[in-house]
Amino acid sequence: MAAAGGPGAKKGILERLESGEVVVGDGSFLITLEKRGCVKAGLWTPEAVAEHPDAVRQLHMEFLRAGSNVMQTFTFSASEENMESKYFEHAEEAVWAVEVLKESGKPVAATMCIGPEGDMRDVPPGECAAKLVRAGAAIVGVNCRFGPRTSLKTMTLMKEGLQAAGLTAHLMVQSLGFHTPDCGKGGFVDLPEYPFALEPRLATRWDIQNYAREAYNLGVRYIGGCCGFEPYHIRAIAEELAPERGFWPPASDKHGSWGSGLNMHTKPWIRARARREYWENLLPASGRPFCPPLSKPDA
Amino acid sequence: MAAAGGPGAKKGILERLESGEVVVGDGSFLITLEKRGCVKAGLWTPEAVAEHPDAVRQLHMEFLRAGSNVMQTFTFSASEENMESKYFEHAEEAVWAVEVLKESGKPVAATMCIGPEGDMRDVPPGECAAKLVRAGAAIVGVNCRFGPRTSLKTMTLMKEGLQAAGLTAHLMVQSLGFHTPDCGKGGFVDLPEYPFALEPRLATRWDIQNYAREAYNLGVRYIGGCCGFEPYHIRAIAEELAPERGFWPPASDKHGSWGSGLNMHTKPWIRARARREYWENLLPASGRPFCPPLSKPDA
Amino acid sequence: MAAAGGPGAKKGILERLESGEVVVGDGSFLITLEKRGCVKAGLWTPEAVAEHPDAVRQLHMEFLRAGSNVMQTFTFSASEENMESKYFEHAEEAVWAVEVLKESGKPVAATMCIGPEGDMRDVPPGECAAKLVRAGAAIVGVNCRFGPRTSLKTMTLMKEGLQAAGLTAHLMVQSLGFHTPDCGKGGFVDLPEYPFALEPRLATRWDIQNYAREAYNLGVRYIGGCCGFEPYHIRAIAEELAPERGFWPPASDKHGSWGSGLNMHTKPWIRARARREYWENLLPASGRPFCPPLSKPDA
Amino acid sequence: MAAAGGPGAKKGILERLESGEVVVGDGSFLITLEKRGCVKAGLWTPEAVAEHPDAVRQLHMEFLRAGSNVMQTFTFSASEENMESKYFEHAEEAVWAVEVLKESGKPVAATMCIGPEGDMRDVPPGECAAKLVRAGAAIVGVNCRFGPRTSLKTMTLMKEGLQAAGLTAHLMVQSLGFHTPDCGKGGFVDLPEYPFALEPRLATRWDIQNYAREAYNLGVRYIGGCCGFEPYHIRAIAEELAPERGFWPPASDKHGSWGSGLNMHTKPWIRARARREYWENLLPASGRPFCPPLSKPDA
Repeated sequence: MAAAGGPGAKKGILERLESGEVVVGDGSFLITLEKRGCVKAGLWTPEAVAEHPDAVRQLHMEFLRAGSNVMQTFTFSASEENMESKYFEHAEEAVWAVEVLKESGKPVAATMCIGPEGDMRDVPPGECAAKLVRAGAAIVGVNCRFGPRTSLKTMTLMKEGLQAAGLTAHLMVQSLGFHTPDCGKGGFVDLPEYPFALEPRLATRWDIQNYAREAYNLGVRYIGGCCGFEPYHIRAIAEELAPERGFWPPASDKHGSWGSGLNMHTKPWIRARARREYWENLLPASGRPFCPPLSKPDA
Repeated sequence: MAAAGGPGAKKGILERLESGEVVVGDGSFLITLEKRGCVKAGLWTPEAVAEHPDAVRQLHMEFLRAGSNVMQTFTFSASEENMESKYFEHAEEAVWAVEVLKESGKPVAATMCIGPEGDMRDVPPGECAAKLVRAGAAIVGVNCRFGPRTSLKTMTLMKEGLQAAGLTAHLMVQSLGFHTPDCGKGGFVDLPEYPFALEPRLATRWDIQNYAREAYNLGVRYIGGCCGFEPYHIRAIAEELAPERGFWPPASDKHGSWGSGLNMHTKPWIRARARREYWENLLPASGRPFCPPLSKPDA
Repeated sequence: MAAAGGPGAKKGILERLESGEVVVGDGSFLITLEKRGCVKAGLWTPEAVAEHPDAVRQLHMEFLRAGSNVMQTFTFSASEENMESKYFEHAEEAVWAVEVLKESGKPVAATMCIGPEGDMRDVPPGECAAKLVRAGAAIVGVNCRFGPRTSLKTMTLMKEGLQAAGLTAHLMVQSLGFHTPDCGKGGFVDLPEYPFALEPRLATRWDIQNYAREAYNLGVRYIGGCCGFEPYHIRAIAEELAPERGFWPPASDKHGSWGSGLNMHTKPWIRARARREYWENLLPASGRPFCPPLSKPDA
Repeated sequence: MAAAGGPGAKKGILERLESGEVVVGDGSFLITLEKRGCVKAGLWTPEAVAEHPDAVRQLHMEFLRAGSNVMQTFTFSASEENMESKYFEHAEEAVWAVEVLKESGKPVAATMCIGPEGDMRDVPPGECAAKLVRAGAAIVGVNCRFGPRTSLKTMTLMKEGLQAAGLTAHLMVQSLGFHTPDCGKGGFVDLPEYPFALEPRLATRWDIQNYAREAYNLGVRYIGGCCGFEPYHIRAIAEELAPERGFWPPASDKHGSWGSGLNMHTKPWIRARARREYWENLLPASGRPFCPPLSKPDA
């Protein structure tokens, strides 16, 4: 996890969080590069770095322009500033990882890919968070596997668990860019649509602004995304929290906030969409009347 | 429209179509680059070519790898091989354009952005097609404004109109990558979700394979996409028609046909998805149970 | 078809229609009595009259109280006033029936169970209507097989067909009480839900008020229902057209118009529903997020 | 609550339950009579008994024919056999009622109108059940306010609560005939569709057979319905549990089990529906593609 972009670019992640900054994470690499034709789904190995370096560089650039402060993925090594352990389904393994990383002497961030029902051995999120902090993690949270609303529920439970245990840590959330209200404990991989028919679940930029705001209100200060998060979703986080952070991401030069860029459209009913209330209240249709809104997970 | 990629790369479009080849078009530039942070929605001007040449070049590369034979968008000038007029809402204007381009002495392709209800003055698609061919177009069809199924309906009507008039032409289709069964005559711009909440309508790769097959069966030989068509959608066309064309697109090295790449997944229920029947029959859920499946157009 | 109820109770149907009255038909007998346990689905034979006379009488009473002017079903014989032929899928057969009934010297009403696509031999609704009127029918229209909105589309086409042919007749509509936007030419029997899972398609009273108003605006003056129409749906017709007819149905003593009866509810948010705008604009949820909104017909 | 119908008709409810019988309750009176035009929504007072005695008697007959063993509603007085307290939102009040009724010396049944979230003071269902049994109730359960699946969740929690407390009682469930997965603590009255647009939520007979089977498997032996339960829903309970009870309800003479009555239909694709697998697996469409599947409760 290397620090990048923004006013505080030279500070380490923990230093930024300690000083009250909001850190904007990055988004989806593997799923996004798969759609660009550079990565194969299923094994999700990082061969793209070697085979399509331009494509990887381009995506990095897009996330940076969108407002990411950090570039996590595809760097594959502990940065000079901090160590991160992620994608754990079991609190126990996550704890071991934190203990090992802790020996480096650097701040450790630990995220788990769990939902509100807890880890694979039924340890609830609040307890998972407490275990990680006791093991030495300075930053705890969730990444991947669950959509924005579900991930925020998990974060609420983590926060409550830490409070109940009298512990403190920085909070971090990196949700999917897909809506998954119907998934079970295993997350989106168990939904029948994974990984090749997730399109109808894709979040809009407005869904992500809402996610960023709620995460912020909950006290989360490291806010990013995972699979399905495209650059414009990261920009949505950076724009929603621009008032708090005091600056806009570079890519906002190509984005009228809340659709304001539509105010010069030739058709009056499209100009009428150039306002916050419109997009905030819209219930977007799927255009798929023969499909159900929810699925039953396979496992 | 410049010829590109594939075995017949040095032939002109018309020459290819005459020889019975299937030509795979490209996809979405403006909407895709907007999501990558390089273009502003609303005016849709092509400033990205100057401001973000790497991003434009990268997207071109992705479409080429995906199997596009032609690179239309963002070239802004008639190629040496043929002339194209597109995005007409009125048959009359399209006819004028064809007549002017015809004077160049090169083959003319003419596409209209109309649906099954016809042009803005209620000229039905079959009659529009006949007018364009009579004016001198060698290739006729539709692009943009309507989703895959709706565009194919329009193509069927165009084909019937030409047959009824005793005319012949090559057929061309470049549908949206969004499903729009609920839009009216004006197409997707009149749907309340345009342009910032179209995500739930996004086509899967399987939707596009189906579109490619049906277009082929209808006799359409120039098959591409428009807004919403990402590189992997173009690859889906090239893969579906690989048997007919005799070769696979480069990006298929990163794609197991019909999800076959999942056959090494560690979870058995995900391995069970590595087959055509699974993806062909799946009805993908939106994950949005508070949203309706269809919208009423604004105009 | 026997005249019944209301101020003009002693006049014949045709006489009423000629004088400009609105005639309110009755509703569903077989499907409703099946749900009350008195009729067997599938064969739909009228044995209930003999086996459960009280149940039949009770349902007749309910429709009368709801505002029906006529009692059609289960009388099985031409009334003294007029003859009716109904449930024809083929214009040709309907024409024969009208010709035979015409010989009685009484006014003939003829309804077909067709939708906007026309009869089983592709005769469009407008032409069907013209044929029936030329054969001698004084009242023409549709009954059964299609939902409210679809039936009104068919009526519009019938009206246009009559106008184009320079013919006149009284118009009559008796739609299903189920929504069927997805059915094909054969109507609701071809939908997979027929006949034992139609519940989610059931019309609300507000849907029926809307249907009555639109039918009236179209010039239809005999307005009733068929399968799925319960007494409260008939009452909705009678209430919507009470201003035009000058009186309310008896059962309105148990119905506050537009939900006004809720204005004394103890919970304020339920009191807030005691108004027309609320019910007119409500989009009622199905409570079935794992089901699709539309089905593909079996035939 | 008066005993009625079936082999054990002369025994009291408790005696039947003690002997291992399954008791089938009755269904909806007020909401059903409102749709028949005899009761006014909102206040739900029982004036129909005086004003429309035939309609009330007819509905009683229908429930009896459908298989109800007991006739609860509209009798308004303790029967000679047992006392019942129902429709309590607060465990505390329910307990007082049970204590008073207990003084009669007769067996007391107590049902609450709560969901899985518990009573209005957040007492969870398991604890509510334990309180009622400790106060002297011999039969405990839920009635009204929540749909079939939600009511079964509550019953599961009640059963677990009793087990945890080392208590025993007979279990009783009388769910709505409407699906309410989206309602909050207050139940269906808080849903925006209450009470005049609940139609799309109406359960099919197959939903109710499933409900009866799951209730039975859970150990519930008094199984009935509340608002929205029509006679054919009660028959569905009686048919599903006919093997266990050893007899079929009278109204089954008008019902081929699992749609078998369709096996003589003239259309082969409708004959193909005359089987259990068909109806068990059908996902019924709403025919309302402009409506969302779920609503947000008003409170």
